[in-house]
Amino acid sequence: MRILVANVNTTESITHSIVGQARSLAAPGTEIVGITPRFGADSCEGNFESYLSAIAVMDAVTRYSEPFDAVVQAGYGEHGRGGLQELLDVPVVDITEAAASTAMFLGHKYSVVTTLDRTVTLIEDRLKLAGLDARCSSVRASGMAVLELEGETERAMEAIIAQAILAVSQDKAEVIVLGCGGMAGLSEQISQRVGVPVVDGVASAVAIAESLVRMRLSTSKVRTYAAPRSKTVKGWPLNFLDVADSLLPIG
Amino acid sequence: MRILVANVNTTESITHSIVGQARSLAAPGTEIVGITPRFGADSCEGNFESYLSAIAVMDAVTRYSEPFDAVVQAGYGEHGRGGLQELLDVPVVDITEAAASTAMFLGHKYSVVTTLDRTVTLIEDRLKLAGLDARCSSVRASGMAVLELEGETERAMEAIIAQAILAVSQDKAEVIVLGCGGMAGLSEQISQRVGVPVVDGVASAVAIAESLVRMRLSTSKVRTYAAPRSKTVKGWPLNFLDVADSLLPIG
Amino acid sequence: MRILVANVNTTESITHSIVGQARSLAAPGTEIVGITPRFGADSCEGNFESYLSAIAVMDAVTRYSEPFDAVVQAGYGEHGRGGLQELLDVPVVDITEAAASTAMFLGHKYSVVTTLDRTVTLIEDRLKLAGLDARCSSVRASGMAVLELEGETERAMEAIIAQAILAVSQDKAEVIVLGCGGMAGLSEQISQRVGVPVVDGVASAVAIAESLVRMRLSTSKVRTYAAPRSKTVKGWPLNFLDVADSLLPIG
Amino acid sequence: MRILVANVNTTESITHSIVGQARSLAAPGTEIVGITPRFGADSCEGNFESYLSAIAVMDAVTRYSEPFDAVVQAGYGEHGRGGLQELLDVPVVDITEAAASTAMFLGHKYSVVTTLDRTVTLIEDRLKLAGLDARCSSVRASGMAVLELEGETERAMEAIIAQAILAVSQDKAEVIVLGCGGMAGLSEQISQRVGVPVVDGVASAVAIAESLVRMRLSTSKVRTYAAPRSKTVKGWPLNFLDVADSLLPIG
Amino acid sequence: MRILVANVNTTESITHSIVGQARSLAAPGTEIVGITPRFGADSCEGNFESYLSAIAVMDAVTRYSEPFDAVVQAGYGEHGRGGLQELLDVPVVDITEAAASTAMFLGHKYSVVTTLDRTVTLIEDRLKLAGLDARCSSVRASGMAVLELEGETERAMEAIIAQAILAVSQDKAEVIVLGCGGMAGLSEQISQRVGVPVVDGVASAVAIAESLVRMRLSTSKVRTYAAPRSKTVKGWPLNFLDVADSLLPIG
Amino acid sequence: MRILVANVNTTESITHSIVGQARSLAAPGTEIVGITPRFGADSCEGNFESYLSAIAVMDAVTRYSEPFDAVVQAGYGEHGRGGLQELLDVPVVDITEAAASTAMFLGHKYSVVTTLDRTVTLIEDRLKLAGLDARCSSVRASGMAVLELEGETERAMEAIIAQAILAVSQDKAEVIVLGCGGMAGLSEQISQRVGVPVVDGVASAVAIAESLVRMRLSTSKVRTYAAPRSKTVKGWPLNFLDVADSLLPIG
Repeated sequence: MRILVANVNTTESITHSIVGQARSLAAPGTEIVGITPRFGADSCEGNFESYLSAIAVMDAVTRYSEPFDAVVQAGYGEHGRGGLQELLDVPVVDITEAAASTAMFLGHKYSVVTTLDRTVTLIEDRLKLAGLDARCSSVRASGMAVLELEGETERAMEAIIAQAILAVSQDKAEVIVLGCGGMAGLSEQISQRVGVPVVDGVASAVAIAESLVRMRLSTSKVRTYAAPRSKTVKGWPLNFLDVADSLLPIG
Repeated sequence: MRILVANVNTTESITHSIVGQARSLAAPGTEIVGITPRFGADSCEGNFESYLSAIAVMDAVTRYSEPFDAVVQAGYGEHGRGGLQELLDVPVVDITEAAASTAMFLGHKYSVVTTLDRTVTLIEDRLKLAGLDARCSSVRASGMAVLELEGETERAMEAIIAQAILAVSQDKAEVIVLGCGGMAGLSEQISQRVGVPVVDGVASAVAIAESLVRMRLSTSKVRTYAAPRSKTVKGWPLNFLDVADSLLPIG
Repeated sequence: MRILVANVNTTESITHSIVGQARSLAAPGTEIVGITPRFGADSCEGNFESYLSAIAVMDAVTRYSEPFDAVVQAGYGEHGRGGLQELLDVPVVDITEAAASTAMFLGHKYSVVTTLDRTVTLIEDRLKLAGLDARCSSVRASGMAVLELEGETERAMEAIIAQAILAVSQDKAEVIVLGCGGMAGLSEQISQRVGVPVVDGVASAVAIAESLVRMRLSTSKVRTYAAPRSKTVKGWPLNFLDVADSLLPIG
Repeated sequence: MRILVANVNTTESITHSIVGQARSLAAPGTEIVGITPRFGADSCEGNFESYLSAIAVMDAVTRYSEPFDAVVQAGYGEHGRGGLQELLDVPVVDITEAAASTAMFLGHKYSVVTTLDRTVTLIEDRLKLAGLDARCSSVRASGMAVLELEGETERAMEAIIAQAILAVSQDKAEVIVLGCGGMAGLSEQISQRVGVPVVDGVASAVAIAESLVRMRLSTSKVRTYAAPRSKTVKGWPLNFLDVADSLLPIG
Repeated sequence: MRILVANVNTTESITHSIVGQARSLAAPGTEIVGITPRFGADSCEGNFESYLSAIAVMDAVTRYSEPFDAVVQAGYGEHGRGGLQELLDVPVVDITEAAASTAMFLGHKYSVVTTLDRTVTLIEDRLKLAGLDARCSSVRASGMAVLELEGETERAMEAIIAQAILAVSQDKAEVIVLGCGGMAGLSEQISQRVGVPVVDGVASAVAIAESLVRMRLSTSKVRTYAAPRSKTVKGWPLNFLDVADSLLPIG
Repeated sequence: MRILVANVNTTESITHSIVGQARSLAAPGTEIVGITPRFGADSCEGNFESYLSAIAVMDAVTRYSEPFDAVVQAGYGEHGRGGLQELLDVPVVDITEAAASTAMFLGHKYSVVTTLDRTVTLIEDRLKLAGLDARCSSVRASGMAVLELEGETERAMEAIIAQAILAVSQDKAEVIVLGCGGMAGLSEQISQRVGVPVVDGVASAVAIAESLVRMRLSTSKVRTYAAPRSKTVKGWPLNFLDVADSLLPIG
């Protein structure tokens, strides 16, 4: 089976890291294909960037011309999963939900350790909508930006471990979820230091996607995620003049 | 003061209708400017279309070159309000939230009557995230598509009234909210027929936007809706080669 | 239009302060009339006093002999709004609900800073019943009694600011609500010190009342707030022999 | 021990009926004293009447000159329990809460069958605030007014039974609570007809009040229900010129 | 009337202590019979032990050959109440629920102080299922194991008081519940030290059981707690070869 | 890897059916071992039977003498998962939770169709405790007893389909979960008839168990599911004289 693993930002090295993590856990017959959006932020750390990535991921996935069996949306707390589900017949698994769902099989409560404080409410909102928040004891920010996870792995690791320890001792978490696609691959080391299971979203999502395909289950098409109605959509598929980089702040 | 009222779809006649409704209720000194997105669906009735509209509205509003004091996002149940809040310093009022918030001052429970069944869960999710769902007794679909509201006003009116009556008698709603920007202007007639207050989202949102401006209040910038961090955003501002119409289904 | 702004306690200077705040934000054509109850506590800081004020406000408002378009009940966390709604055909806006509702347009979560610790649960209960608690991160007491807000404005301001800062840093509030009618007029200064929007209940309630009147919306009369049934009510309207002051504790 | 059982309305025959019910279940050493308010509605079926009764009960109980060990507030869904708790050192038990609390020991979910539709939301609100709503499957109105329960017992019984049967079959209630002080004494007959336990609020409240006294437990005075602070309360104790009957509608 | 008070563990001295507490508060005509299970852990402090006790209590109660009027299950946070309810026609009162229910008549929020940290989530889960968690401000562990409560009463008392004080000052509890059957008899002393009402589960449960019997109320048999269907149950009643002690860890 | 699939009742044919379902979906290298308890009911349809099965499954699993990598507890809505988690170091996956968790990746809301009405509340309670109830639109009973599923497959299928159709049309479910281990193998046929994805608990649980093992994740041991403390447990391991069948009703 072939699973598309879609990075939500435009940083190729993150796609590589995510794909590596996905492959290390995929079953023998599973082919993992990394998808990087054509446009959008180099890292998603807020609502504007996340909404832009929602469309950029839909653009990238629908432009992929080979057949595939499932999609993993590899951004923690990002928007857009429901849109992809409408556009596709194969299952779509979001890593935020996959990780939370997996954590709930391992302990009474789990905490998420993520990047910046500003993404905490995005993640809380995603978990609430997904109905996976009842056993979430906290979402904690390590203070490390997404791109710092790559450049300063050691410092990032320590910052994550510090928050994970607080989550266990103060918030009564029994399981830790790594709340960023860019943290792929750190779970085992962190688990050894903190003494509780540490769940990686990409690995969880790939495992769930594989299982759904094996069970021949896909998105229900009776209501919320039915294919879009036949109608005029101006400018779609997106047809850019160029996708040159710009620098925020906009203006 | 100047308030931008952003239609979420590309149908100009809906923009006109929304702007008309906004103007009829705005205070004397308020200028209402209608915004129609450059791209996106001619009506938003699902997640894909809604995510696309989120970006299209951000594109249209940030391209508006004159100063303005507030934005009303005039799509019921649509995504994107949080992204706009990050990009702007002025208040952003979503009509879904404005209408619910207004209805709660008028009765113990309210129901929303919207267009198609498939948009019901979108609206429920928006209300849940907004924390305005505790007194929502139901979201009911009239079965009328957004564009049918224009062409077949009489039939739409009857379908809405039928559901409103059920909401009052069966779901114990005491107030009805019209759950579609395209229903602007129908509230008074429906109220007379159903015998309860009927809230219009556009009117409510304009009133709230005016009030916020008058009280010199705007979006908090300390965490969730802080301006985006300075970073590389590929392809933004959006630079399309063309925005020719396409017809769904895609492919 | 004429809006009655009803103080919930018998201290005239608080009525003046509330009316001043209301007038400073009311639209040009709005007349603000202050109402002070004939009986009750000089400040409301508990259930007994609040229930007494509920009746005292109903007594005062129903004795007001001129026509009016809306009522603002200007006590934070007080009982009685539902009773007034039954007795009147015009909208009744409670400042607790108005402030919370307004705050929710400005940030992801809000906190209330109020007077004494004992009023915290009263406010929490009002917000829960109003269905406006889901995004309330905390209700914090400044430790200042209602009447101290008048005599010791400087000290009160510092105590409120201290709690507001904790609400933002510890409870993750992004907006502060001033939880006492007697705090009217302090919002702008506090906002400058704390760095987040600060919502004043009286201003919010007046703005909402004006908007409801402008939209020709009033309390639904189909169930919860229908006019009282025709029946014998002993001793109403209240007919006191005298309303001499007494000092608690009673007996 | 002596327990005051306070009727919330001014109809003496209801006081007699409540007292009879209380006595039939009280332990041998318990003296039951009925309290009828000096003023207020002859039956409480809405917010205005309920708020008035809150004060009328506080007035009546604090005027009672003999010592007593507990108070039962015998109105279903009425306001005021918290005020009484502040004024007294002995336990105060509300029948709405007593009945719900008792029902929860008898089955997985319970339903309340009450009088008029307009009181349903009052009861729902009381149960929500009391935190006793999670296992309440419905509050159903029999359509019988409070005073009709006395005059037309047979018809009232049938109307209550009809709703109780629907509560069991449709709402999955396993226990029925009689949601009106005026229904005292009907529980056993209804239970035989409906086939599930039927809980009477007055009996439950007396039993709980007795138990609290026996365990030497009373209202916590550390925060919410601390005695009112020492302050000026105009017109309290209430000193009426007369309490002649009036007829609603007021004016 | 005769009430069986079932200890959930096999330590006879705890049965004696529980029975003593029950007798000191039972009404004159009530006979209290202590039940100690034939098998199971000497103290219940986790899920395995609790599930084992559930069956052991059902075994012991159904082996009791005399008639009885009610059962009190005297383990805090333990499983099994629902099973007993199915097997019996008389009321079954669990002390976790009895204590919580009683505490809610005494203050706005209550906290539970229990033994070991690992039992906290068991108790939280019981309260959530019972629908009695909405006003629970915290469940705190004293760090004392069940059997240490007997041997080291003084130290246990201090540990409980320390947590109770934190519950009042930090968690805003107004009432304390002693969250262990083995704490029977300590409530009055702790109350004096902490300054709030302290509820004992055994006393509360006996009072409620007596009241239910007096009101002729018992478990509803229409659905959840109907008697087991007629079917083959292998090995029940339990017929052990021996019940020799074993020592955990197993294996 | 070896996964124990534990039937919760003593009917061998159900074990075979469950094992067959598990094997048909397990990955190539996975060995499925069926476990049938030594004692307990031939079908679990209530609390007593479920508690007994909890202990019987713990007994059977801990008596299994070969190494294994995970356990699937194959009873829908049954007690005991937490006890097993304490006793084992390998992951334990309950089919109730596995199915719900899987369904949530496939649609906005799911419904469970189970056997008898009396098991509905058991399932609701399990989902609530698991924090997987927020997107459960209903739990519906087909009215077929567990053992009837085997003997009367055709009639059972129709009864399940009838409820599934109601769940989709009335309760707005978009996915159906088969709420009984004995329904293993029916999902594909039912899905074709109802037109939505149908989730089988055993298949889901095996997939999740395999994934957890592959990701080297197991139960957190820091608090709730820590191994039992070292203590005296009378009569454990269980040592029965005989396990002869008995017939309920007991006595």
